[in-house]
Amino acid sequence: MRPSGRAPDEMRAIRFEPHYTKHAEGSVLVSFGHTKVICTASVEERLPPWLRGKGEGWVTAEYSMLPRATHTRGQREAAKGKQSGRTQEIQRLIGRSLRSVCDLKKLGERQITLDCDVIQADGGTRTAAISGAWVALRIAVDKLMAQGLIAEDPLTRRVAAVSCGIAGGTPVLDLDYDEDSSADADANFVLIEGGQIAEVQATAEGATYDEEALLRLLRLARIGCERIFAAQGDAVTA
Amino acid sequence: MRPSGRAPDEMRAIRFEPHYTKHAEGSVLVSFGHTKVICTASVEERLPPWLRGKGEGWVTAEYSMLPRATHTRGQREAAKGKQSGRTQEIQRLIGRSLRSVCDLKKLGERQITLDCDVIQADGGTRTAAISGAWVALRIAVDKLMAQGLIAEDPLTRRVAAVSCGIAGGTPVLDLDYDEDSSADADANFVLIEGGQIAEVQATAEGATYDEEALLRLLRLARIGCERIFAAQGDAVTA
Amino acid sequence: MRPSGRAPDEMRAIRFEPHYTKHAEGSVLVSFGHTKVICTASVEERLPPWLRGKGEGWVTAEYSMLPRATHTRGQREAAKGKQSGRTQEIQRLIGRSLRSVCDLKKLGERQITLDCDVIQADGGTRTAAISGAWVALRIAVDKLMAQGLIAEDPLTRRVAAVSCGIAGGTPVLDLDYDEDSSADADANFVLIEGGQIAEVQATAEGATYDEEALLRLLRLARIGCERIFAAQGDAVTA
Amino acid sequence: MRPSGRAPDEMRAIRFEPHYTKHAEGSVLVSFGHTKVICTASVEERLPPWLRGKGEGWVTAEYSMLPRATHTRGQREAAKGKQSGRTQEIQRLIGRSLRSVCDLKKLGERQITLDCDVIQADGGTRTAAISGAWVALRIAVDKLMAQGLIAEDPLTRRVAAVSCGIAGGTPVLDLDYDEDSSADADANFVLIEGGQIAEVQATAEGATYDEEALLRLLRLARIGCERIFAAQGDAVTA
Amino acid sequence: MRPSGRAPDEMRAIRFEPHYTKHAEGSVLVSFGHTKVICTASVEERLPPWLRGKGEGWVTAEYSMLPRATHTRGQREAAKGKQSGRTQEIQRLIGRSLRSVCDLKKLGERQITLDCDVIQADGGTRTAAISGAWVALRIAVDKLMAQGLIAEDPLTRRVAAVSCGIAGGTPVLDLDYDEDSSADADANFVLIEGGQIAEVQATAEGATYDEEALLRLLRLARIGCERIFAAQGDAVTA
Amino acid sequence: MRPSGRAPDEMRAIRFEPHYTKHAEGSVLVSFGHTKVICTASVEERLPPWLRGKGEGWVTAEYSMLPRATHTRGQREAAKGKQSGRTQEIQRLIGRSLRSVCDLKKLGERQITLDCDVIQADGGTRTAAISGAWVALRIAVDKLMAQGLIAEDPLTRRVAAVSCGIAGGTPVLDLDYDEDSSADADANFVLIEGGQIAEVQATAEGATYDEEALLRLLRLARIGCERIFAAQGDAVTA
Repeated sequence: MRPSGRAPDEMRAIRFEPHYTKHAEGSVLVSFGHTKVICTASVEERLPPWLRGKGEGWVTAEYSMLPRATHTRGQREAAKGKQSGRTQEIQRLIGRSLRSVCDLKKLGERQITLDCDVIQADGGTRTAAISGAWVALRIAVDKLMAQGLIAEDPLTRRVAAVSCGIAGGTPVLDLDYDEDSSADADANFVLIEGGQIAEVQATAEGATYDEEALLRLLRLARIGCERIFAAQGDAVTA
Repeated sequence: MRPSGRAPDEMRAIRFEPHYTKHAEGSVLVSFGHTKVICTASVEERLPPWLRGKGEGWVTAEYSMLPRATHTRGQREAAKGKQSGRTQEIQRLIGRSLRSVCDLKKLGERQITLDCDVIQADGGTRTAAISGAWVALRIAVDKLMAQGLIAEDPLTRRVAAVSCGIAGGTPVLDLDYDEDSSADADANFVLIEGGQIAEVQATAEGATYDEEALLRLLRLARIGCERIFAAQGDAVTA
Repeated sequence: MRPSGRAPDEMRAIRFEPHYTKHAEGSVLVSFGHTKVICTASVEERLPPWLRGKGEGWVTAEYSMLPRATHTRGQREAAKGKQSGRTQEIQRLIGRSLRSVCDLKKLGERQITLDCDVIQADGGTRTAAISGAWVALRIAVDKLMAQGLIAEDPLTRRVAAVSCGIAGGTPVLDLDYDEDSSADADANFVLIEGGQIAEVQATAEGATYDEEALLRLLRLARIGCERIFAAQGDAVTA
Repeated sequence: MRPSGRAPDEMRAIRFEPHYTKHAEGSVLVSFGHTKVICTASVEERLPPWLRGKGEGWVTAEYSMLPRATHTRGQREAAKGKQSGRTQEIQRLIGRSLRSVCDLKKLGERQITLDCDVIQADGGTRTAAISGAWVALRIAVDKLMAQGLIAEDPLTRRVAAVSCGIAGGTPVLDLDYDEDSSADADANFVLIEGGQIAEVQATAEGATYDEEALLRLLRLARIGCERIFAAQGDAVTA
Repeated sequence: MRPSGRAPDEMRAIRFEPHYTKHAEGSVLVSFGHTKVICTASVEERLPPWLRGKGEGWVTAEYSMLPRATHTRGQREAAKGKQSGRTQEIQRLIGRSLRSVCDLKKLGERQITLDCDVIQADGGTRTAAISGAWVALRIAVDKLMAQGLIAEDPLTRRVAAVSCGIAGGTPVLDLDYDEDSSADADANFVLIEGGQIAEVQATAEGATYDEEALLRLLRLARIGCERIFAAQGDAVTA
Repeated sequence: MRPSGRAPDEMRAIRFEPHYTKHAEGSVLVSFGHTKVICTASVEERLPPWLRGKGEGWVTAEYSMLPRATHTRGQREAAKGKQSGRTQEIQRLIGRSLRSVCDLKKLGERQITLDCDVIQADGGTRTAAISGAWVALRIAVDKLMAQGLIAEDPLTRRVAAVSCGIAGGTPVLDLDYDEDSSADADANFVLIEGGQIAEVQATAEGATYDEEALLRLLRLARIGCERIFAAQGDAVTA
């Protein structure tokens, strides 16, 4: 039995509130249970200098947590004067994940920045961020297409992410904070609608794991991502 | 006629959603029209070294905007590696304002940090932040009193803030972004329930102003703060 | 009776020593009693990129204290690697104050930087800095006009600043360090020759204050600034 | 056919030169083909404050490249004033990998820092670093045991890492720089002697991949790590 | 003939104005011609942690230039967020020079910090700073001895510094900015009253130099330092 | 008798291993006894903006130590976020030394960066770095001449450096760490093949020194540099 009472292959309640903010070209508030992340997509019609002149665009991401998103207050990174290694790792992962489904040539010479700001954290913030960032990006791209700025859709597939882990010896889907902090292994899967894989990051925490466990975690991730793909679809057609 | 159609002494819709986040000892989402700020109060039972041993506590504040809270995306301060002068000015003001109504001796040797994170900006973010921070602080102090950690209420008066300005030659209350960016003078008033003043910051922008104008702005601020005091009261008794 | 033996509406000795340094286009050593600030105006014939091409110039300021300007040595900001919030707040105020009397169009596409370095501190460093910066700016602008680089005087009015406060229940003018550190309220007024106001910053320290007190402080400030305007006039015609 | 002429499951020449430097408690120069990394283990008999008093030790890692380890010179991180996201990601991975085989209780209240400095880069620097760091750590731990400072061996299993990828449609082992920069997927496996997995990081670059591909890459990694385990064993018994 | 009309072995006018500032335990404004440096000595009765418990004190120095001390305005180091290599080199030299004449055991467990802030620069700022720092230190030590905090004089010899160089083929003493910027070699000598040497830093600029030239520069430095020793003596007995 | 058993005028074993790394245009591993430094020369065909358009090139240097190059581990400068004053002082010295033998006009509008990374430290790291940097630069310049990119040799003389000091009252050549840490004076000499001097830095540590001692140290330096010039010659013709 999981602390939350969920079955091993049961996701938390997933919710996307699209158009959550007023100024961004695309935005959503995504919730995975108590984990809540504001994702916005900002379109800039010029690229940073090192990306110009290649006939293609760029998709990048930034990630942050509000200081009191967590059980105890963390120091604000802006006040410390630098982003932690964890923050940088996560925002690099979000960017790569979104680029894996975006045709940068079709995007044209513009940059889209996905800001993922965690309002409340209860495990799985990076996977909620990736899943929400896709919704924000989809909305922003739709706007560019409606304005005639993009001719062909650069974003033909959905991408979603979920964490799985081995908790109390059992592979389980979508860990909350309590499970996450005591799990023996912690794996984040970024999956593409249709079955392909964009990224696997599977880390031994208390104990190492074997190939069989890796595959069982991947199967749970497929179940979870199907749920997320469906919710993403509802959100962008709402 | 103001761009928003409001009368010169008319506030935007004010809304406090208390208990907005799960982990903080006190929290609220405050809206002044389209301006939205998450305020949390975090209690720490130890003081920074330079404040210890004086038999009193401390109240401090931090302020930030999400990068896309504004019309165009601003660079994330954590990525730039430092907080802007504007951010520091604002968070110092929030801290001073809350300390003006808090008896630090009665608070005891603990620190309360007020984090004010702007989710969406449409003018008046610092005044919304001060007004919301009081609600978050009130909730956190009530919790400390309910737990028997504080004997006597250190927070006997409300504090609220509002911006006023001279727009198109007319003194107006609670400027939104459009008014703010074209106003000739911009003043922020931090007022105490009952009529006292905690802070006045009145700045000439396009044109300097006279004593008469300063007094008219102060009178508008009194009207606005009465509205805010009432809404704060509703929020904490809800 | 004030600690210094001054009457409530009595300024400290004010002194401007123009042309204090050799290289700057304008410079002055300003003293308000024991408070001494070197102010220099540096003219640069090019603007930072974000200000170019608007057909107007820019006036900005930087402020610093020598580490041992104060009773005990403070850490050097260059060694700490960042400017404090207080420093940034003050230099932003100095810049705004000077821009309130400078017609940037008439200045032409050039930048003037006012460096205000406190050699010795005894209260009122920011107000001495603003008052001195006007003298340095005036000298630099006169030089530009004499060289035929500016056709029409962009600086037709004087600006000065003074601090006032409520000390021992009495409103007093031009606080020195002893008074400042025990005052109940501390207000800085930036006034324009002729009666207009450029900035009011009035902060409750130990106790909040009322409208009547604000007005009494403003009246003291008018008395002080008249004294400063006269001394500025003497300095630039010397 | 691979650019290097190697078979798909063929490693580059692996070489460990133990005791490479004079001062460190453990050290090795590890080469994977042209990739060369100096790994040192430094023992400190005191822990950072947040790790003290738990009756256990800590193993951590830092990673850097010499500016001209690569084809074109990269800016020195010490000169830039910060470590890149890539650097932080890699050094966190190295630390986790080594901790997965180290019993921190048996290590006792001391810290071992593994410094991995890339002298020459030709792909696979992080996997060479992990594999070399184990050798440096083993030597340092042996020294502590010989000195009687540690009673029971905290390091009973070996850990090694290798990169695999899909290049030209074929899964291949131990990518060099040429293959790495054009591969469709790039996976780093950290494996434990005996078959367990410590970490999988498998990233789609040009194209996403499927479960079958993931498994084929894992099998190649097992082949590679067996080779590395053997070379590690030779190095520490030399 | 030198640009200034001085003879090759002629110093500029040297002037020490002791007790220049009010708060520091020792202070002086030193001028070498148009070069002007404020030197203050600040006594702190506690040492930084790494120096405690050795039964001796420490003397250290910091150096800075006001942004407009020079012909064109330089960026403020506090605003850039770091001290330049030049600044660090100079402040390390000042500290070493003063420690060469100070018996740290007799000083006792306290730290004296010498702040050298260049108000106006015209060549030789570091040598003026060293020469002035001795005066500030002497005054501060005298105060400690008068207060009975130090029993035996830790500062029995004077130290002074002067720059020499080869300009237009001729060895000359005490270079001003014009000479310094075109000299072929530039040497700074830190000499002790009585003839000993504390530091030589002799650098080829346009052309390398030979042993004969080095000795001729040293002899000029002796002439210059005798002048400075005499002026230092006058300053501290004034 | 010196701790190492060397005669006062005896150098440690000197060794240059040219072409030590694969990617750099010039490289060498230089050893002075146990001190080992990797020096690489990187050619960039464009200059930083402030050096462009003068019809000449630039030679610059960077210096670093691996954290465990020393007896105890030092904190990594990239992790601290800044280079120490010592590091900056040394890399400025290396750059000046190499520029003293390089005709920047003949080099043409390109920049050569000399990276000197200390692998193992046992005294004299900066002098080994200068001596090795010349070898790396020579190799890189030869390559540019062989490619026809440079017409005339910009590097007609060798430069080398060695440290000398007064240890136990005796002037000695090429101090190792043990001697260096207890020497009374420590001098670094940068000499040019043929007898000219590029730089002298002679610092009193425990005791000040006299002119006679300075000359004796210079004579020892000449002996040492002759040895280094010969070894440099062998290295580049190997």
